[in-house]
Amino acid sequence: MEIKNLSTRMLSKIAKSDEHGENSPYFDGWKAYDSDPFDPIRNPNGVIQMGLAENQLCFDLVQEWIERNPEASICSHEGLHAFKNIALFQDYHGLPHFRNAVARFMAKMRGGRVSFDPDRIVMGGGATGANEMLMFCLADPGDAFLIPSPYYPAFDRDLRWRTGVKLIPINCQSSNNFKITKEALEESYQNAKVKVKGLILSNPSNPLGTILDKETFKTLIEFINDKKIHLVCDEIYAATVFGGANYTSVSEIIQEMECDRNLIHIVYSLSKDMGFPGFRVGIIYSYNDNVVNCARKMSSFGLVSSQTQHFLASMLSDDDFMDKYLLESSRRLASRHSKFTNGLDKVGISCLASNAGLFCWMDLRHLLKEETFEGELGLWRVVINDVKLNVSPGSSFHCQEPGWFRVCFANMDDETMEIALRRIRKFVGTNEQENARVKMAKPWRKNLRLSFSSITYDHETRVSSPVIMSSPRSPLVRAHT
Amino acid sequence: MEIKNLSTRMLSKIAKSDEHGENSPYFDGWKAYDSDPFDPIRNPNGVIQMGLAENQLCFDLVQEWIERNPEASICSHEGLHAFKNIALFQDYHGLPHFRNAVARFMAKMRGGRVSFDPDRIVMGGGATGANEMLMFCLADPGDAFLIPSPYYPAFDRDLRWRTGVKLIPINCQSSNNFKITKEALEESYQNAKVKVKGLILSNPSNPLGTILDKETFKTLIEFINDKKIHLVCDEIYAATVFGGANYTSVSEIIQEMECDRNLIHIVYSLSKDMGFPGFRVGIIYSYNDNVVNCARKMSSFGLVSSQTQHFLASMLSDDDFMDKYLLESSRRLASRHSKFTNGLDKVGISCLASNAGLFCWMDLRHLLKEETFEGELGLWRVVINDVKLNVSPGSSFHCQEPGWFRVCFANMDDETMEIALRRIRKFVGTNEQENARVKMAKPWRKNLRLSFSSITYDHETRVSSPVIMSSPRSPLVRAHT
Repeated sequence: MEIKNLSTRMLSKIAKSDEHGENSPYFDGWKAYDSDPFDPIRNPNGVIQMGLAENQLCFDLVQEWIERNPEASICSHEGLHAFKNIALFQDYHGLPHFRNAVARFMAKMRGGRVSFDPDRIVMGGGATGANEMLMFCLADPGDAFLIPSPYYPAFDRDLRWRTGVKLIPINCQSSNNFKITKEALEESYQNAKVKVKGLILSNPSNPLGTILDKETFKTLIEFINDKKIHLVCDEIYAATVFGGANYTSVSEIIQEMECDRNLIHIVYSLSKDMGFPGFRVGIIYSYNDNVVNCARKMSSFGLVSSQTQHFLASMLSDDDFMDKYLLESSRRLASRHSKFTNGLDKVGISCLASNAGLFCWMDLRHLLKEETFEGELGLWRVVINDVKLNVSPGSSFHCQEPGWFRVCFANMDDETMEIALRRIRKFVGTNEQENARVKMAKPWRKNLRLSFSSITYDHETRVSSPVIMSSPRSPLVRAHT
Repeated sequence: MEIKNLSTRMLSKIAKSDEHGENSPYFDGWKAYDSDPFDPIRNPNGVIQMGLAENQLCFDLVQEWIERNPEASICSHEGLHAFKNIALFQDYHGLPHFRNAVARFMAKMRGGRVSFDPDRIVMGGGATGANEMLMFCLADPGDAFLIPSPYYPAFDRDLRWRTGVKLIPINCQSSNNFKITKEALEESYQNAKVKVKGLILSNPSNPLGTILDKETFKTLIEFINDKKIHLVCDEIYAATVFGGANYTSVSEIIQEMECDRNLIHIVYSLSKDMGFPGFRVGIIYSYNDNVVNCARKMSSFGLVSSQTQHFLASMLSDDDFMDKYLLESSRRLASRHSKFTNGLDKVGISCLASNAGLFCWMDLRHLLKEETFEGELGLWRVVINDVKLNVSPGSSFHCQEPGWFRVCFANMDDETMEIALRRIRKFVGTNEQENARVKMAKPWRKNLRLSFSSITYDHETRVSSPVIMSSPRSPLVRAHT
């Protein structure tokens, strides 16, 4: 016991703190899934993972491409001649053909309306690593960035944990569809008690699935330009836009208006648009020479494997294939989104109108037994433990209003999505029968607990089953999502 | 200009400082090579790169293995079925078969005398990322680690730059073959003006190419155990031991003596032993549960590409192949080392006796025109600019005695090594003729400048040619070496 204490005492403040943010229902939901994962044959009553923003809809296209292009791999007979040079390659800049291909792909997915300079492409270890690198470049410990809430839970880890940077939420509300208002922005800026170094936007938004309209975007850029603070645009969902929506990247907006480009930085990744989170491709694209220079030096901590760079350079350079892929991926996302939201609609569940991302922002406010975050967590426990769906509660995204949930729809096949919808229908139906039974003895939304009387849950513990608590040695969490 | 100033002013202290350590002759030598690289046909008078610790001697074995095992790649016809699951895999823990294979390989290369628990294998982005992660886990900004000098120049970047940790050298001297003495260790510890959190050892040593003897090792472990400070053992050259030397890993020593295992941490990589620096495989193996837990969370910033994990898991698990590889690699390193040092010996250049690594620690003290670090840099400029060999001066390794140089011998073919030796012979020969001519008018070692009168060099500039200075936007440096 003494040794244990010693071993902890000798560690850093970072290691001893819980600033990593792992103790969030967002991650707990993953653990719940990991301990009882749904499988149509082996575990048909298991938890369906709807908390993971994976894009699984287009792997057939990628696999066909690989069959046609075996020389893209350095570990195939056809590509082996390149093995030695690629295995040895560790230049900070990345393989020239990789950077060129990424720059071209980034332009392509923005309709060719903007171009990217390959010399400004800097690699990081996934968007996770890229985001942290930008913070190390732009801010000192104690400095702050403004960020519209709700926002991606793991930003707490990526942006703050090791950098000491603070995040100050800009409160967005359902009353205007969670749009970012000038007033809320000013309020957050003025009330900050520390030095504000910049604004972070995820566009398309995670968790909302919405894209910024040009007018709002221009207001935000005017704001950061006036204040002389940085703008970090996380555009990792840029190619998940569907339904003909008119997505505009910050790279386009700054062509249309005056602003100091030294303040503009983009984070990109292939984890969402291509569905390759395992490949750990994070990209920083900065218009500031000093940031490019510093980030490039930092990239030594999270370079993309040269094996992966080489493979992706081939695939992303294939214009015909990528044109087809982007079109088809968008079409499939639109179709899945439409099926899923229509299914929810039939049982009276609505989502925020959206046209991007791999998830919906689902409104379950009418199912809360009390309009508090405790009520939200209570409902979440029912959904995860009894309905057996891992969705993520809005509070884990720092949403200011209880009752919203992020639900992912692109990380499963059609059959699994249908099963998820059936479970939701049954849940809502049971709920309604229960409501009828208690005949409005209380306002019906208060009766959720009664209708799931077999489930015991406790606000003091995070999840009902001890098996899904995190083990101190083995966090069952995944990386960037 | 104003915008430029603003853009710099708005950056972090890290971005504005030069603590990265890039402004070192170690990196400048790489730039000199990059600007005029030797090629036997196209540029036979170019600079030969002997500053890069690459292992290029066994790629034929690896390539044969790949030809026989096309299913090891997810981007081949034979392995494609695994593509989707691998591309999506982003668990912090790493692929189970990857961790198992790494643990088995680490045991194999230590002669099976010790075993490693796959659950303690944590991934980092190369040894670069793994080293930084350990510092983030173990120390707060301002805390210090002791480190025997000479030591790897890029430790300044890896261990200090973003963590704020300090490195305090332990002075090792040529008089006892650069062994670490208890006295020097105590002196560094006692004189430290900040909190000492631990000791860092690279074993085998970079740049010395030596291995720690058991007696010294035990003394060091007693020391850290008494002081209750951490021991970080960088063992990334563990499989480069040759000539039947009796290498002992810290993992073996702690089986033989009492110590608090919570203080023991190993950094490993496949960049040197296998020659795959491009694959960015860094490993932390800690005996401290809390460090494993914390480092695993941090690994999200530098996970190994799942494509690469999958491939390596197959190769490292092939016991027959790995047995053969390790034996043959050691044999080839021994042969190359022997040819190279014998060649040097013939012209009166000796190296520190060594039996590991991809380099020699070359003694050029007799060629210094003055026994200072300015004299060392002067000689270095002659070697790089006229002899056209990029070797690395000892001062960049924080060596306390001028006149030592690290020279790498495994990153080239036999023919290139012969050319390098011919250049050295010619250099020393010219030097000796010149000495004869001036007939001891001054002590001969002072006459180096005369004997290379066509070369002008200036102590105030780092290198003589402007084309090899670092560009502010484009550092021509490579990652971990």
